[in-house]
Amino acid sequence: MDRLPGFRDFYPEPLPNPDAWSADARQYILERWRQTARRYAFREYDGPPLEPLELYTIKSGEEIVGQLFNFTDKGERAVSLRPEMTPTLARMAGAAERNYKKPIKWFAIPQLFRFEKPQRGRLREHFQFNADIIGEADPTAEAEIIALLIDSLRALQLNAQDFVVRVSSRHAWQQFFSQRCPDPAKAYDFYQIIDKLEREETSVTASKLNALGFKLDEVQSFIRAGEPTAELELVLKNLGARGLSDYVTVDYNVIRGLAYYTGIVFEAFDRKGELRAVAGGGRYDNLIKLMTGGKVDLPALGFGMGDVVLLELLKQRKLLPSFNASIEVFCLIEDESLRSETLRLVTDLRAAGQVVDYCFTPTKPDKQFKRALECGAKRTLRLERTDAGALQAKIKELATRSEQTIAAHDIIATLAGLRASSAGQ
Amino acid sequence: MDRLPGFRDFYPEPLPNPDAWSADARQYILERWRQTARRYAFREYDGPPLEPLELYTIKSGEEIVGQLFNFTDKGERAVSLRPEMTPTLARMAGAAERNYKKPIKWFAIPQLFRFEKPQRGRLREHFQFNADIIGEADPTAEAEIIALLIDSLRALQLNAQDFVVRVSSRHAWQQFFSQRCPDPAKAYDFYQIIDKLEREETSVTASKLNALGFKLDEVQSFIRAGEPTAELELVLKNLGARGLSDYVTVDYNVIRGLAYYTGIVFEAFDRKGELRAVAGGGRYDNLIKLMTGGKVDLPALGFGMGDVVLLELLKQRKLLPSFNASIEVFCLIEDESLRSETLRLVTDLRAAGQVVDYCFTPTKPDKQFKRALECGAKRTLRLERTDAGALQAKIKELATRSEQTIAAHDIIATLAGLRASSAGQ
Repeated sequence: MDRLPGFRDFYPEPLPNPDAWSADARQYILERWRQTARRYAFREYDGPPLEPLELYTIKSGEEIVGQLFNFTDKGERAVSLRPEMTPTLARMAGAAERNYKKPIKWFAIPQLFRFEKPQRGRLREHFQFNADIIGEADPTAEAEIIALLIDSLRALQLNAQDFVVRVSSRHAWQQFFSQRCPDPAKAYDFYQIIDKLEREETSVTASKLNALGFKLDEVQSFIRAGEPTAELELVLKNLGARGLSDYVTVDYNVIRGLAYYTGIVFEAFDRKGELRAVAGGGRYDNLIKLMTGGKVDLPALGFGMGDVVLLELLKQRKLLPSFNASIEVFCLIEDESLRSETLRLVTDLRAAGQVVDYCFTPTKPDKQFKRALECGAKRTLRLERTDAGALQAKIKELATRSEQTIAAHDIIATLAGLRASSAGQ
Repeated sequence: MDRLPGFRDFYPEPLPNPDAWSADARQYILERWRQTARRYAFREYDGPPLEPLELYTIKSGEEIVGQLFNFTDKGERAVSLRPEMTPTLARMAGAAERNYKKPIKWFAIPQLFRFEKPQRGRLREHFQFNADIIGEADPTAEAEIIALLIDSLRALQLNAQDFVVRVSSRHAWQQFFSQRCPDPAKAYDFYQIIDKLEREETSVTASKLNALGFKLDEVQSFIRAGEPTAELELVLKNLGARGLSDYVTVDYNVIRGLAYYTGIVFEAFDRKGELRAVAGGGRYDNLIKLMTGGKVDLPALGFGMGDVVLLELLKQRKLLPSFNASIEVFCLIEDESLRSETLRLVTDLRAAGQVVDYCFTPTKPDKQFKRALECGAKRTLRLERTDAGALQAKIKELATRSEQTIAAHDIIATLAGLRASSAGQ
């Protein structure tokens, strides 16, 4: 029996086949995201992966239902696997915002689900790093959230040659729109056309724009000019002060398809432009009010960054570390009369933080050593008795095959030292 | 709009109300689990939270469907949210076992879902630490997995006064059964009665046993004698060598309800016996064969440990650390002309691993300081210029209010030192 299409099994490395997904790589990405968010003083939250369906239709209308894993549960409730985190965030923040100082800086790493045709870079589930700031209207918050986005990618060894954050402004586009069209009801259709600009045939775009009363060349020259708004300039200056200018560019091609963005919007792309967006976000000042039925009215902004496209980028750039050699000490038991003493040592070393393995059952010495090599252990340890009956250990570095003999009471400290020095390499 | 019943929102601390679930406490537990498993050289895997319904009915029969979040997806597939991890493990290991050296030591921390009436210690979802060993028939594997269970709880500061692992043996019970009943088909019913022994009225148990041809007092004296099998003695001896004897006891009250266990079974309980089982597991040597349609036949064993009962136990024992004071450096900006320099420093300190926050917009100095206190920051940092125009920093420890002045080029190193010394406290 196989798993469902568009879903992933995550295996430990070494992977059973080249197409398998790596649990180690996933965990590496998730841990870097979490670490970076914490350094930025963002606090973690999470909500249920299953929510009332209404949570999503309120925000996105009934048309979203076709893309959801939704169903009626045994309690006759219309429910859905979460396709995005923002509605849950709005619900949670709306219910508890009075208990938190503003601005609220929160992050989450949910698994999200959409019933769509699986394709490259887009499956039916993915993990998404979500970071949001609630309760700050000043564009300095945009700078903070974009800096976090950049540093989350830098924490994975990506740099300004690898990716760029394209920032844009709904305000700028809104002004462009309202100078040329008196009907605000058409704005959303117009944004949808701009959102597809880079993916659609120029002739198709041109005729769609004409139908709304716009001219393609006006749109194109507005984008080409790329005149930053005062707000965008503040964000660029702030990011410049942080030393992050190389990572960001004004690009009005970006507008974000979703209806609810209200201010600055942005997307991160690989520099070569070969992949889908790595991350995207923006300001959504009206959404919490909408989601709380008007009870809570707070400005907000945030971004989402998925693991699928990011992993593709890291593989392309060969930036994934090796996850094979995780065992620090492999204990050899060549003298079965020392099995008990070895088990005690295994327990103590693990308690001291070392990653330790050994052979469960009596095994020939050469087979034990082979196993240590196969699992990529850093060193082996073998207990023995001196002629005087004292316990001591032979510790062998597998990279150099150099061996040292250590008295029993020094084993844990010696291995702690070896560990610290190999971590520093 | 509220979340679904039996599901949890996880908030950052300080919690908005006493009943709220803490995202920080959850993450603390999950990280300790992961850390301990890694030290034991277990490797992480994961599967989809949504699986074909058949994956669960093969193992547990149609009766399990009533307890599942199952539905028909838009591709007309019968699917279910995962109620447990073992079927996914069996599927994954069955498909790829040839690529991994035996014994395979794997762990996962899935969120699991059951449609049941929510009650104390049992919701409709929970996170469960799963660890399994595949490909080792010797009971030394039981010792390894029970040691991991014990150390996962010790990593959360629980000790032998807090919990105990009650080990038992399906072999022992099978022998008891077959000596008294010639019909193996009745064995499962018999195990079900034993499984409920401690929760059911004695008279009810007695009449159920009579109906199967057993006597309650024979059952009771078998349990009271608690004569360990040779296999159990090996496990106890192995755990004793590790220094873990205080954490484990033979107790034939434990039998585990599920049909698929074949050998040693065990459950971890709080010593006071007030809560549900914290963890449970055992050997299931036939399950992988069943789940792979006979293709792969490997002995296996494992356990599951949920977060809900465990969190209750940690709260009772007051063993949860404080999660409030996470900010290491709060940067004060009293001179707006130094905002750019401060933003640069904030970025550099975060890159150096410090948790750093500051006020986004110009704010009165006393309000900034108040904010630093409110968020529990360890220290504040304020940039200033000397009369000669050089940049320097005033660093104030908020616990002692002691302040020192540091030249600009020494700031990062000084804070790294302060961090290391407070981590050592």
